[in-house]
Amino acid sequence: MNGGPLRVTVWGENLQEHSNPAVRAIYPAGMHTTIAEAIRQHVAGANVTIATLDQPEHGLNADVLAETDVLTWWGHVGHDRVDDRVVERIHERVLLGMGLVVLHSGHYSKIFRRLMGTTCLLRWREAGEREIVWTVNPGHPVARGLPEAFVIPEQEMYGEYFDIPQPDELVFISSFAGGEVFRSGCAFRRGQGRIFYFSPGHETHPVYHQPEVRLVIANAVRWVGVGPLPPYATFRGVNSPTGWFSPPPNP
Amino acid sequence: MNGGPLRVTVWGENLQEHSNPAVRAIYPAGMHTTIAEAIRQHVAGANVTIATLDQPEHGLNADVLAETDVLTWWGHVGHDRVDDRVVERIHERVLLGMGLVVLHSGHYSKIFRRLMGTTCLLRWREAGEREIVWTVNPGHPVARGLPEAFVIPEQEMYGEYFDIPQPDELVFISSFAGGEVFRSGCAFRRGQGRIFYFSPGHETHPVYHQPEVRLVIANAVRWVGVGPLPPYATFRGVNSPTGWFSPPPNP
Amino acid sequence: MNGGPLRVTVWGENLQEHSNPAVRAIYPAGMHTTIAEAIRQHVAGANVTIATLDQPEHGLNADVLAETDVLTWWGHVGHDRVDDRVVERIHERVLLGMGLVVLHSGHYSKIFRRLMGTTCLLRWREAGEREIVWTVNPGHPVARGLPEAFVIPEQEMYGEYFDIPQPDELVFISSFAGGEVFRSGCAFRRGQGRIFYFSPGHETHPVYHQPEVRLVIANAVRWVGVGPLPPYATFRGVNSPTGWFSPPPNP
Amino acid sequence: MNGGPLRVTVWGENLQEHSNPAVRAIYPAGMHTTIAEAIRQHVAGANVTIATLDQPEHGLNADVLAETDVLTWWGHVGHDRVDDRVVERIHERVLLGMGLVVLHSGHYSKIFRRLMGTTCLLRWREAGEREIVWTVNPGHPVARGLPEAFVIPEQEMYGEYFDIPQPDELVFISSFAGGEVFRSGCAFRRGQGRIFYFSPGHETHPVYHQPEVRLVIANAVRWVGVGPLPPYATFRGVNSPTGWFSPPPNP
Repeated sequence: MNGGPLRVTVWGENLQEHSNPAVRAIYPAGMHTTIAEAIRQHVAGANVTIATLDQPEHGLNADVLAETDVLTWWGHVGHDRVDDRVVERIHERVLLGMGLVVLHSGHYSKIFRRLMGTTCLLRWREAGEREIVWTVNPGHPVARGLPEAFVIPEQEMYGEYFDIPQPDELVFISSFAGGEVFRSGCAFRRGQGRIFYFSPGHETHPVYHQPEVRLVIANAVRWVGVGPLPPYATFRGVNSPTGWFSPPPNP
Repeated sequence: MNGGPLRVTVWGENLQEHSNPAVRAIYPAGMHTTIAEAIRQHVAGANVTIATLDQPEHGLNADVLAETDVLTWWGHVGHDRVDDRVVERIHERVLLGMGLVVLHSGHYSKIFRRLMGTTCLLRWREAGEREIVWTVNPGHPVARGLPEAFVIPEQEMYGEYFDIPQPDELVFISSFAGGEVFRSGCAFRRGQGRIFYFSPGHETHPVYHQPEVRLVIANAVRWVGVGPLPPYATFRGVNSPTGWFSPPPNP
Repeated sequence: MNGGPLRVTVWGENLQEHSNPAVRAIYPAGMHTTIAEAIRQHVAGANVTIATLDQPEHGLNADVLAETDVLTWWGHVGHDRVDDRVVERIHERVLLGMGLVVLHSGHYSKIFRRLMGTTCLLRWREAGEREIVWTVNPGHPVARGLPEAFVIPEQEMYGEYFDIPQPDELVFISSFAGGEVFRSGCAFRRGQGRIFYFSPGHETHPVYHQPEVRLVIANAVRWVGVGPLPPYATFRGVNSPTGWFSPPPNP
Repeated sequence: MNGGPLRVTVWGENLQEHSNPAVRAIYPAGMHTTIAEAIRQHVAGANVTIATLDQPEHGLNADVLAETDVLTWWGHVGHDRVDDRVVERIHERVLLGMGLVVLHSGHYSKIFRRLMGTTCLLRWREAGEREIVWTVNPGHPVARGLPEAFVIPEQEMYGEYFDIPQPDELVFISSFAGGEVFRSGCAFRRGQGRIFYFSPGHETHPVYHQPEVRLVIANAVRWVGVGPLPPYATFRGVNSPTGWFSPPPNP
């Protein structure tokens, strides 16, 4: 961060906005634009830019990532179209401290599955049903300013079992009208980086226009926004005795 | 355990069974008897005995605890009547490896609060509403043999925020008809001992007669049943250089 | 924090500074003064005050705690002289978001044991031996600005087994010349509050004058300094249906 | 496990045993044979078989894995020669409950990195120096029967920072003569499976002949040996409403 403004890159798949009029009606400028606005609204001084799947290297070349403190990710029908080399580049940056906020169907993105090491599968149902998001970690920065629970009137259901490693910190749990539960706000640390997964946000519901959801995303951006950081000796591949820290502790 | 049968002491407050006909109608021999039967049903060879509040030292004198591998705890209106010296004795035994299974309103027992270090308060409502218990840790031994979710038709609602330390392993999350969620199956390690908290089980609902609930309790008894174990040097207060393990590693 | 400066209360037992000339030689104004200076040095704008055992209510009456964002704790030979009512008051404040930084022999203070729920015993030896503090969580804010490892030339040995709950985040592990290891930097969340335990800092070694140690303490103060926060419904004892959040989610 | 004997497959790279006389002198029948003997010695009734890199599909075809409860993994110079399809197959089996014990240089195997999602890099030095393995989780089954610490006279140094997710349970921490520390015994849960990483065991030191090390490996095999288990709905790809558990909870 270098003391300057937080540099946020909002990545959007930007496919269903064009293929589905219902999505375009809710997000005429794309979900990514709405998400970027939410971050600008709540994170004072943030420098927020947008990148999308159709751009060269999906808008995430090495220079862009080198100047990104936090990357947010929304993908759905185009997961397989994301270049593996870009995924590896993001992965490397996260381990060196770039924050990552993964939203909704991003649970099945290549980068999230790569970082989790599990299938990241879950149970789901599209029925426009009520979700209630409960805070189970009220002191966590991502819960700051939020009520003890808030209601999303219409949402896609995401339910357990959600095949992820146990989160380092579980912040939100949701219930759905159908009776399911879901770990909807999960914090992870990997390498020097932080990852926050937040499940609300289907493309055919105006979830990213809802004030509480926008605040959660902005809080998550701030919470993961710690880096990038200089690599550790192990990251640099400096594993020989000469890579030892100086002066050696036990001469 | 010494290779012998698992020695389980089922502790019951045994107050509302006498004061409330509705409780007596469901649990004529006391909830503790029903719980003990569930354990005998599922834990082959277990040696299950019962202790209650009205007994001398609540049935938990030093000899009893010395021969107990697992203690289960159900208390509610009589938490304050439990002798602090007995609580300290249980606390010490748990840290030395005695397993502890805390049920339902036992969340506010002295021993659970002592071990957690937090208030253990929660949100609640008595409305006989539907609870669904979801498994979020399907490989955990306490979930063994259970379906991905099961329904308790009528229950007291227990809801978040539940003021406990983040569990070492979260096994079950429940939803309620009113929309609340609750971390209903929580595993903790403290010292050499294991603790499992399981929330279903109100006194005016026949929850402890339900097969899935009985299996969870039996699984929990088996999972926490690792000790007691010999004390470590630090537990013995052997902190001087002469308490060093032998032979010393760095002569 | 209310947007104002971070309000830090540094608590010192202030006994051995008077009884032991060796301690006074290293910390002529008391360890608490040196610790306070380290915080002022690194936490810009912090409002740092000092409280000691000999003051009425140990300098920690309700008004002081109500205006404290972070409390640091150093105690050793006087643990038993700390009033239980003050301990309960601190405990309550921590669960409502006041940060707590526990230093060295504070591991056996009443407040730390109360929050942990375990004995907090450890292995120790006074031999003025070399300690190396290694970072095992390089992205953690408490490790910010520190090298991958640093050496404390002479320290009391603190060794495992350290009887604490598994930390929510393990940040530092130390090794000692004698071969022992110790989880020397441990982060915990309890209620809405954060706790950081950092073990370096014996009274007869100039550890609190060492730059790396001072930076860790300042980082820890910043990291735990999130509150106090308004109590949740469960903390307020609002557990009846009428204590429900408004409007109810499922009318 | 189906109630029958525990079925263990010990996988060995089996390269340096042939290329390096020093390795062959210590492990004339291969490290895998010594590891298999340790398991047979301590896990009563275990059915232990061996698979190696040079076999078709590295000895790990679908039928073998389908009948494996626990796989142990030792690899070093041949990580890159392991077929990605075999890695995917193991990965899938672990998530469905097959236990995995990863030994020493296996930290950089494809399967361990795949499951962790991080680089799994560490600091190392070959100097035949003393390692002390300390138990920091004395109630954990993998520590059963072991002393509070034990010494390995000559070992390769493995040091922090070790780039892994925070373990679900940290069981052992080692110190080395050079002053480094290492999280040498780490327990993870992924999907329905368990993973244990244990670092002692270099090919040019007789570590796998040492009684304490053999007991740890056997304990680890028992601890991870819970499955395989039937797949959950989400694993089966049953995500539509018709994949709902039956009967639905909220008709």
